[in-house]
This record gives sequence, structure tokens and C-alpha cells, in this order.
Amino acid sequence: MGKGVFMYNLIKELFPFCRSITGQGVRDTLSTISKYIPIEIVEVKSGTKVLDWIVPLEWNIREAWVKNSSGKKVIDFNKSNLHILNYSIPMQAEMSLEQLRDHIYTIPEKPDWIPYRTSYHDENWGFCMTHNDFLELEDDKYKINIDSTLKKGVLSYGEFFIEGNIPNEVLITTHICHPSMANDNLSGISVAVALAEYLSKRENYYSYRFLFIPGTIGSITWLSKNREKVGQIEHGLVLTLLGDSSNFNYKKSRKGNQMIDKIVENCLKNNYKSYGIIDFYPYGYDERQFCSPGFDLPVGRLSRACHGEFEEYHTSGDNLDFVNEKNLDESLHLIKKIVNTIEGNFYFNNLFPYGEPQLGKRGLFKKVGGESKSKSFEMALLWVLNQSDSTKCLLDISDISGISFEVVKKAAEELESAGLIEKI
Amino acid sequence: MGKGVFMYNLIKELFPFCRSITGQGVRDTLSTISKYIPIEIVEVKSGTKVLDWIVPLEWNIREAWVKNSSGKKVIDFNKSNLHILNYSIPMQAEMSLEQLRDHIYTIPEKPDWIPYRTSYHDENWGFCMTHNDFLELEDDKYKINIDSTLKKGVLSYGEFFIEGNIPNEVLITTHICHPSMANDNLSGISVAVALAEYLSKRENYYSYRFLFIPGTIGSITWLSKNREKVGQIEHGLVLTLLGDSSNFNYKKSRKGNQMIDKIVENCLKNNYKSYGIIDFYPYGYDERQFCSPGFDLPVGRLSRACHGEFEEYHTSGDNLDFVNEKNLDESLHLIKKIVNTIEGNFYFNNLFPYGEPQLGKRGLFKKVGGESKSKSFEMALLWVLNQSDSTKCLLDISDISGISFEVVKKAAEELESAGLIEKI
Amino acid sequence: MGKGVFMYNLIKELFPFCRSITGQGVRDTLSTISKYIPIEIVEVKSGTKVLDWIVPLEWNIREAWVKNSSGKKVIDFNKSNLHILNYSIPMQAEMSLEQLRDHIYTIPEKPDWIPYRTSYHDENWGFCMTHNDFLELEDDKYKINIDSTLKKGVLSYGEFFIEGNIPNEVLITTHICHPSMANDNLSGISVAVALAEYLSKRENYYSYRFLFIPGTIGSITWLSKNREKVGQIEHGLVLTLLGDSSNFNYKKSRKGNQMIDKIVENCLKNNYKSYGIIDFYPYGYDERQFCSPGFDLPVGRLSRACHGEFEEYHTSGDNLDFVNEKNLDESLHLIKKIVNTIEGNFYFNNLFPYGEPQLGKRGLFKKVGGESKSKSFEMALLWVLNQSDSTKCLLDISDISGISFEVVKKAAEELESAGLIEKI
Repeated sequence: MGKGVFMYNLIKELFPFCRSITGQGVRDTLSTISKYIPIEIVEVKSGTKVLDWIVPLEWNIREAWVKNSSGKKVIDFNKSNLHILNYSIPMQAEMSLEQLRDHIYTIPEKPDWIPYRTSYHDENWGFCMTHNDFLELEDDKYKINIDSTLKKGVLSYGEFFIEGNIPNEVLITTHICHPSMANDNLSGISVAVALAEYLSKRENYYSYRFLFIPGTIGSITWLSKNREKVGQIEHGLVLTLLGDSSNFNYKKSRKGNQMIDKIVENCLKNNYKSYGIIDFYPYGYDERQFCSPGFDLPVGRLSRACHGEFEEYHTSGDNLDFVNEKNLDESLHLIKKIVNTIEGNFYFNNLFPYGEPQLGKRGLFKKVGGESKSKSFEMALLWVLNQSDSTKCLLDISDISGISFEVVKKAAEELESAGLIEKI
Repeated sequence: MGKGVFMYNLIKELFPFCRSITGQGVRDTLSTISKYIPIEIVEVKSGTKVLDWIVPLEWNIREAWVKNSSGKKVIDFNKSNLHILNYSIPMQAEMSLEQLRDHIYTIPEKPDWIPYRTSYHDENWGFCMTHNDFLELEDDKYKINIDSTLKKGVLSYGEFFIEGNIPNEVLITTHICHPSMANDNLSGISVAVALAEYLSKRENYYSYRFLFIPGTIGSITWLSKNREKVGQIEHGLVLTLLGDSSNFNYKKSRKGNQMIDKIVENCLKNNYKSYGIIDFYPYGYDERQFCSPGFDLPVGRLSRACHGEFEEYHTSGDNLDFVNEKNLDESLHLIKKIVNTIEGNFYFNNLFPYGEPQLGKRGLFKKVGGESKSKSFEMALLWVLNQSDSTKCLLDISDISGISFEVVKKAAEELESAGLIEKI
Repeated sequence: MGKGVFMYNLIKELFPFCRSITGQGVRDTLSTISKYIPIEIVEVKSGTKVLDWIVPLEWNIREAWVKNSSGKKVIDFNKSNLHILNYSIPMQAEMSLEQLRDHIYTIPEKPDWIPYRTSYHDENWGFCMTHNDFLELEDDKYKINIDSTLKKGVLSYGEFFIEGNIPNEVLITTHICHPSMANDNLSGISVAVALAEYLSKRENYYSYRFLFIPGTIGSITWLSKNREKVGQIEHGLVLTLLGDSSNFNYKKSRKGNQMIDKIVENCLKNNYKSYGIIDFYPYGYDERQFCSPGFDLPVGRLSRACHGEFEEYHTSGDNLDFVNEKNLDESLHLIKKIVNTIEGNFYFNNLFPYGEPQLGKRGLFKKVGGESKSKSFEMALLWVLNQSDSTKCLLDISDISGISFEVVKKAAEELESAGLIEKI
């Protein structure tokens, strides 16, 4: 199980908060994260201009319900924070079912799940409920109460930087703005926290920057405040949807041929029979901002299920039963492999490029010849020697040879020790 | 039906003329066309040197028959102008079946159809007939009469130029040298006439040049007389075989990666399930000349059936029943789409390239978030913004996104109105 | 059968010698070859430094057996020279089955075949035998006798150079170090001898260099002594495994896009329905050395069966029944096609690039037009004219058109005679 239990428990701890793009739910989430890794919490005031956007008013909510004429709560925010249209303005009113209907969101095709809906940038109010419950609403006079506030405050996000041997950065980013949904995106948060903890305990070649940010406006805010830093980002991953049981799916960076794209594809190919590689498209999660044409960063997106393509997406079906420890652990394991490939991927020069150097006399090769099947490690030695002409990195050699990066890297280490190749 | 009836009627009107590469049949064809669009009729004298060729003597024919010893006409040009080997020299003779046989062309595998055969550049004479009729010829003495003339005259072709906002030209060309065959190529002529009429009634960005020319020698003559003009041709299409019921087939330009190639493929992909894309080969219709290595123009060929690949090809089976109004209209419709894509395909620059600009506040985006499926128009907005970095035109964006050119163009227009992108 | 009988008989003649990387078996092989083609025999002293290697001591063997306590020979080198671990040091000893077992090599999965095993670079001794015979060895006291010598001498190889019109070379190389096995690699030797004989009897455009060398150490020795010559090598082939009945397999050069790669693939595509094209990998035969990154020569490998991928590989199953005259002859035939493509592959310039030149008036084209199917030769004329813009060689034109190189070449010859194209 490895860190699976830790990650699942973190999801459980974070599940109840009513997150949004601003407000107390975000603050509670960040302060929970900071119990495990020492993130810096950044606050940016409402009204601040960030790129083409404005940091919105801060939204907080205490209570929200609809009562029928008998005083019975037919919708109650306390039962599920998905019941409220996220960013609903305050509202006290009385109205007919006819009038109420325009403010109710359901999913007729999935009548047992509450949808998750938002209205960040238009003043609006509304309730979300299961379609079955909606069908039971009678023609009646309903009392509406939304005890929310929408006023000047801050947008909060968390940032955690781990300094490596070189200033070049690997960006790991995940959104923290969704209310009680487990996969989207408490799974991304918990895997990012576990990864940050793992990396902070060892020496790294690259520097690592973790962002825990509200979707869209959070990445826009961070990019706006850090325009001079983005040039340091050499590889990046948006983490999301990592607790369900789908195969892995990797969405490439906008350029599509960045080293991060090759590395993730190599790790998937060498470890999984089935997986998806998706070309960049300008929708989904925060890769939309990191891969906008002005920044065009080498940032891909790793997930299990795909954005919008599973039926629990943005519903109450994305609950604590929809994710599990094993899946989370497998996700973390893959991301560690990706990170270790980033860390270990170098270019070498063969110092004996004319003919093959004699491996036998250096103890690197089997003694008795004539057998047909050469083992993978010996093949890796030959591949590294043959391809190390300064144009191919170890990842390229793993791709060409079909031998896993780990074995290629081990071969390169032994060849380097034997003085046959040198790092560029 | 649109213009289908018009085009079919034009085919019927042109069908009876005995066309060839020169002569009265061509003149009659051009004067019929000029009833509908104001083409300029160009005449080039026999003996004129055109590139590596010489404009041939003009051929005209009044009558041609073979009579048996009882005086019965067993072959008669008046019944079908395919009966005569096109460009047959004058001939009056009497001969045995044995001797006649060397001058008779049939298709044993299609015994009910008369083949269409030519001998433009070698002095020869002959008759074409159905194989069944041929088998009935008895051992007899036959009288031959070919009342043709082959003497100094002119080669005629038609040209129609529609001036646009820019001098860069779109070339539309079609051959007019085949006698009574409907698909090859009265269909090409009638679609070209309908397209010319359509374009001449509106303002166009590009200039359009229509050629109605005898195959091979006609395009060679035009190219020879207009060498200084070919540099203006930015896109070109050879139109032929557009009345039958095959799927569309597009043969690429010699370079194979010209904008016209991408545009036609995009229009086919977004409108038809089945179609063919054929790499350039140096045979077929006048694309052979426009795509000779010295000119190497961006000219492709659009047809339904393929050159030489349908059994009615160059036979009396290619008659008025082989084409219909619906097919002609669908062909015209596709070519209009191609032309409109040419007209509307621009490069834009995103003026807000850092992060996504906020579409909501500009009224360009839906109000309530959280739903999984974003509509095609909203996706088109995001695609245009993300890809408009001056390296991609709208057509490229349509190709990458899989969204039809029309929707992408509409999105670009709205983004341009909103001041988010600007035309380069 | 052509030269099949000759090649098969040469294999039979060479089969009995106990070849290794040095010694009398190699000398006997080279002197047999020199009965048919006038090779130069080169000797390089033991201890000579060659690239990263040292020419080893010379190994010779007269006798080797294992006797049981009754004095019966249970293993006898005289019955098959595969019985001895190649390069075994001299040994006289008496030992238990227990002790002997560590020095015995068998193939349990193929219990009737003796494996071929070597220990060139580690001092060792051993015997190879069928697994069935091994199972019959009783618990006994065994006498071992290996009457071999391992002392200063020479490494021998054969070289044959055929001067052509230009100094640029085609390298044909084959290994000669395997004892009694017919396919690996007496087939390669015999095909190379037949090819050398064929080429030495005619005038060639290219110069041809044939190498008959011990595997690995032989190519390393040759490369070490001829570093200044390798720049002359424009195309090269390692010949091996050419007598069995598999489809042909071609392993590409390291760069993978060399002219030799395109030529062999073209010849295979145009002559065989099934064949294999294998990307370069740094294992197999002497292409490992020629394609080491320092040399990186345009050398591919042609074989029928693939290295290590047939069950008779490196066993006594690779005997005189495993190869035959027909297969050898077909292999020679293919290699002649390859050589003739190398010899005839030129770039031309169309001297009439504007429009098609009129082929009819030059007698190059059929007289009666209108038929749908143009014959391959006439199409080849059009292809050569259309593509001869100095960027495409005849091989490229064959590839693009799908017309065999021979027909394309014939078309180019006629066009050249007619003054329509000129060689660059």
C-alpha cells in the first residue's frame, strides 16, 4: 500500500470543506496541507488585476436551504455542499415552484446524483439537487435562504519550493477549488502532498515548485505574479483525477514534443499495457493557462480518468467510494518514476566510439559466447555505447531500444564507472 | 436541387457537338458557354509553337460512314460522333473486311459500348463501334467515306477573369475537347460555368481565372502564352467528372502540401464520410501540365469518379443517363465550400496571449460552469485563441481541432470583434 | 539454378574445417576461397593493438575427447568440431562426472543438437554435446584430453578489391569464423564469392571491396588498419544466413535513411511479397563495428533468417541439409539486383520542364489515345520527366511511382537518348 493510506486519509480529512475559488474552504484546505508540508500561503486581494482578469470578491457561505410551506427543508446545504450553486449571492425570498425551477440544476440522466455547478463571474444564485428529489417537489410556496457573503477579501493559494542542485524547475500543480468531490480534485492534492514530502526528504538535481491553486483564476494569478519565474520551468505536470481506477491518461503539452511529453510516454509504455496519450487541446484544467500561447510552457497533465469523460464527473457520485488507496498509491508510484527519469536523464559521449570497446576485459560482459538471446542489461550496454554520440539522451536510448529507462540508466552508470562514456 | 437543373440542361445543350481539340465543335461549345458567362474566346493559329508543341491543323468533319455491298450504312457518324476516330484524315476507299478491320476499334469486354479513340498527332483514320455490331460484319466489300478536313485554322479556348480585391489568383480549369460524353467532361464545364456565375455576382477577395480549354494542347497553349501570369496563381483546381455518383476524389498538387491540398482535404473530411485523396501522379488531365516541374503550380484536381477508373470511361456509356442534377449540385456545393475556405482563411494574432482572456465578461461564454461537454463554438473560441500565435491559419486550427472551418471562422470573427485577436 | 550448384558445392568444400577467429581452419578457408577469386590474404600478429582490442593468441586444435573408465570416447572432436568449446585451452585431466559437468554445454530444449559455444577472451575449456548424450553419461571417472595450442601467431583475413570507374566503394563483408555450420556463415561466404566472381568479370561504375573476416575481432582489425579508407565507402552490406528458406530480412544501417537502405527496401518491395525490414540495433554481426558511432558507415545487413531467431542457430542443426542451391541462387539474384541498382541510380534534369515535352513526335509514346490503362513503361517516361528536377534520383522515382527500378532506368535511358533529360 505504501503511502496509499496516508493519501486516502488526507482526502477524507479535506472532503467536508466547502471549497470554492476563494473563501474559508480554501483557507481550511491550505492549512490542512500545511500540517504535512511547509507550504507558503499567499493571499491576493479582491480587485487585483491579474493578466486579463480581476481577482473576484471573496465568497463565503454559512447556510442555505429551501423550505416548503410546511417548513420542511427540501434542500439543505448542510447535507452536501454541492447543493448550492457555487458563488451564489445572498438571497432570502419566497416563491412558487414555477419561479424556483429556474434556479435549480439537476442531471436527468443521472437522477441520483447532485450536480456541481458554479457561477463565479455572473451574479446569480441557485441550488443543485438530485433529479429524483426534484421530481418530488410539489406545487407549493417555497422559502429560500442563502446565507452567503460576497465581498472584498482575498484569493488564497499555497506554494512549496524545494531547492535542488540546479535552479531549473519542475512545476507540479493541482487545483484546490472544488467542494466535496474526492477524485476531482482531492486525489490530485493528496498525491501532490505525498510527492512533495518524498522529494523534500532527499537531495534533488532539479528544483521543484508545487502549487495548490484555485482552478483558472489561481493559475492566472500565480502566472501574473511570477512572469519572470516561468522561464525557469523546464518540465511541468498538472496533477488531477488520480484516485479512480481508470488507466492513466497523459495530455501532452501544447508543443507536444517536449521532454516531459517523452518522459511520461516512456514511463507509461514501459510500465503499463494500456494507457492514453492525448494531444493538447485548450480545455480541461490549468494546463489551459500554462499552455496559453504567450507562456507555452512544457507542462502536461497526468490523470487516470479524463476531464469530463467519466459519469461521476462534477457530481456527488465523485465521493469517497470513488477513489481508493491502491489507485492513489499506483499514481504516486508512476509520478515518482517520472520524477526519477527527469532526474536521471543525461547525455553521454562514448569515449571509444570506433568499433565496440571490449566489454569482456572490463568485466561487463558474459564469458561464454554463442547463445542467441542476449540479456537486456548487456543489450543496454551496447545500446548506450552505440547511441551516445551526444545527440541522444538516455531517454531517447530507452525509447529506441525498447529497454526500460532504469536498465538503460544502470548500464550508463556502469559504463561511466568503467571510463567508457562521459556525461556531457 | 439548387443549380442542378441549370447544370444538367447545359450538359444536354452541349452534348450533341462533335468536339475535338480544334474545330467547329469547340467553337460551338464556347459560344454556348458565352450565353451564360462573358468568356473571352481566344484563337491561336495552327503552326504556332507552344512550349515543346505545335498548334495542330484544325480538324472538321461533316460526315463519315461505312457501307456494305448492299449500300447499307453499317457505321454512321450521324448516329454518334464517337463512331469516328477523332482527327481522322479524309478518306474515300473500298476494301475487304480484312483490310477494314485494322481501322476499327471496339471494346470486347463491353460489347454494347462504342469506344472513344483519338489520333491527334499521327495521320490516321478509323472507326469506333460496339463489339457486338463489329461481330456482325460479314466478309464483304465495304465502301468507306470520311468527309473531314485537316487544314490550317485555329485552336480555340475560352477564358474568364473575375477581378478580386487582390491580384492573387485562383485558377479553375476544365477541358472541353471530348465529343458526346456527359461526365467526361460536360460535367466539368457545367460546374465551372455555374461557379463562375456565382462568383461573378459577388465581391471576392481573390481574383478568379476560369479556363475552358482543349486537354493537353490547350493548357500547353495557355501556359505558353501566359508564362508571366502563372506566378499569380496561388491556388488552382482542375474540374472534371463531377456528374456521376461516386464519392469525391481529390488528386493533390505535385508538391502535395500546398494550401489548396489542405483546404480540399479539410472540406472533404468535415463534410463526407468517404472520399479519396490521391497523391499526384503525372497522368490524367491538365494537372499534368500545370504541375510539370518547370511550372509546379499549386493546382489539384477535383472529381467524383477517377480518371480511367470507371467502366463508362471514354465510351458511349458516359451518356446523359450517367450524370444527374443532384450529383452536379452536390459537386458545386463542395466547390463553393472550397472557394469560401480559400476566401476566409487568414492568420490571426492573439492580443491577449498570456493566459486565457476572460471570455465571460465579453459575453462570449456560457454563464454557468461545471458541465462536462463544452459546445463546439465555445471550443472553437478557445482553439482560435490558443493557436493564433501567427504560425497557424484558421484552416490549420480547423484541422487540429477537428471543428469545421465555418465554425472556426465564425469564432475568429467574434474574437476579432471583441478585440481579442487581430488579422495579420 | 544458375550459380546455386557452385555455391552449394563451395559450402560442402568448406564445411569440414574447424574455423575459429584464428588458426588453421581460417587459413584453410581462405586458401579455398582463393581458388575461385584472387583474394589477398592478410595476417596480423597476435598482440597487435587494434582499436580497443588486442589481436588474440592463435588457437589450433588437433584432437579432443572425453573417455569413460572403460576407455570409450563419449565425446570426440573428430565426429564434430562443435564438440569443443571454441578456443579451449589445452587440458589433460581425470575427473568425476560432477566435476566434468561444469565444462559441458548442451541445449535441453533441443536435445538432439550440439550447441556451438566459444570462449575467445577468457581462458577456459569445455565440451559441447547433445542433451540426450549428456543424459546418458554415468557417474564415472572420466579422462579428458584437449590437444590444442594457444600461442603467438596471426589473425588471418581475406580482402578482394575490384577497381571501378570511380574510387567510391561498395563494401561487401562476411564472417568466416564459425566452424561446421552451413548457414552461419558458409552461405554468406559462398554468395560473396559468387558475387565477387560476377563483378570481377565486368566493368563497374563503383569500386567493390570484399572482406572475408573473423567476426568482431576481424572487422575491428580491418577497421583499425584502414581508418583512412572508410571514407570511401558509399554503400555496404554484411552478408550472412543466405542459404535457408526464410523470407529475406534487411537490417538498416545505424542512420537508417542511407541510400543502401532505400535501395534494398526498393528491391525487396518490387520483387517479394513478404520480407522484413529491421531497424538498426547494436547486436548481431559485423554491422555492430561498421555502424559504431565513430565510423557510422552506410552499411546494412542482408540475410534470410535473422540472427538468433531460428532454432538451428548456433547448433549442429545448421548443417548441409539446412541450406540449398535454390535459396542460395535466389539470394545471389537479389544481391545482383541491389548492386545493379547502386550502379544505375543517377539524378537527371528534365531539359523541357515547362509542360510535358511531346513524346509522340519522338516515337516514345503510343499512337492511338483514349484508352484508360497506360502501360508501365509509358508511365515511367512521364514519371521520370515529371520528377527529374535534380532533387530526385531514379530510385526515388521508382519508390514514388511504384514502378520497378529496372523499368524506370530504361525509361530514363530512352529519355536521355531523345535529349529530353540529362544526367547531373
